[in-house]
Amino acid sequence: GKAFAEHYYRIFDNNRSSLNTIYQPQSILTWEGKVFQGQQAICTYINELPFQKVERKIQSIDSQPTIIPNFQPGVLVTITGTLVIDGEPKPLKYVQVFNLLPNQGSYLLLNDFFRFSLD
Amino acid sequence: GKAFAEHYYRIFDNNRSSLNTIYQPQSILTWEGKVFQGQQAICTYINELPFQKVERKIQSIDSQPTIIPNFQPGVLVTITGTLVIDGEPKPLKYVQVFNLLPNQGSYLLLNDFFRFSLD
Repeated sequence: GKAFAEHYYRIFDNNRSSLNTIYQPQSILTWEGKVFQGQQAICTYINELPFQKVERKIQSIDSQPTIIPNFQPGVLVTITGTLVIDGEPKPLKYVQVFNLLPNQGSYLLLNDFFRFSLD
Repeated sequence: GKAFAEHYYRIFDNNRSSLNTIYQPQSILTWEGKVFQGQQAICTYINELPFQKVERKIQSIDSQPTIIPNFQPGVLVTITGTLVIDGEPKPLKYVQVFNLLPNQGSYLLLNDFFRFSLD
């Protein structure tokens, strides 16, 4: 969980256009309530987000196994933290959730939620 | 997703000791980073939380299907909101995540994360 989140954020914060290595055709993203399905729709949206520079601070990373009978366990990860966007003075709190399925010795990002917290 | 969250919060906010109807032996709760496994451990912890009165405001409820090959889809729900606890003046922001598995025509709460947001 933690390793995946760190990997994801390294790409998101430094080289957002490479997130197509992470999202798959099965992936679903809900970003501030807007839903995107599949690698292409998700990556297009993320690449067009109207900010460039991201300074991230992680508050917490919580992980749990998702144990389903007769199925290899996955990992569900909930992250809280803050983002400073394009040098804005006020850090924005956010939460992100990743649902990871086992997939050929690695993990597939099936579900992704992102929300800024209300102020 | 939304209906489950409303059902859960109706019980949590009004009659916390009845949450044993919701958690199952397979359930896992991570509350502020502390992990509890199984109905009994989870319900004991929640019942002993050091506050009584809860006024809740929901900011957002986002739901996605969890689509796993050869398995009935479940529902993953991410909630953000605020809690006023025991009449304290300052509302506390929180995030909660529910992972629901289909189970005999209903849903089983498999994974549950709760975090207050840093201030």
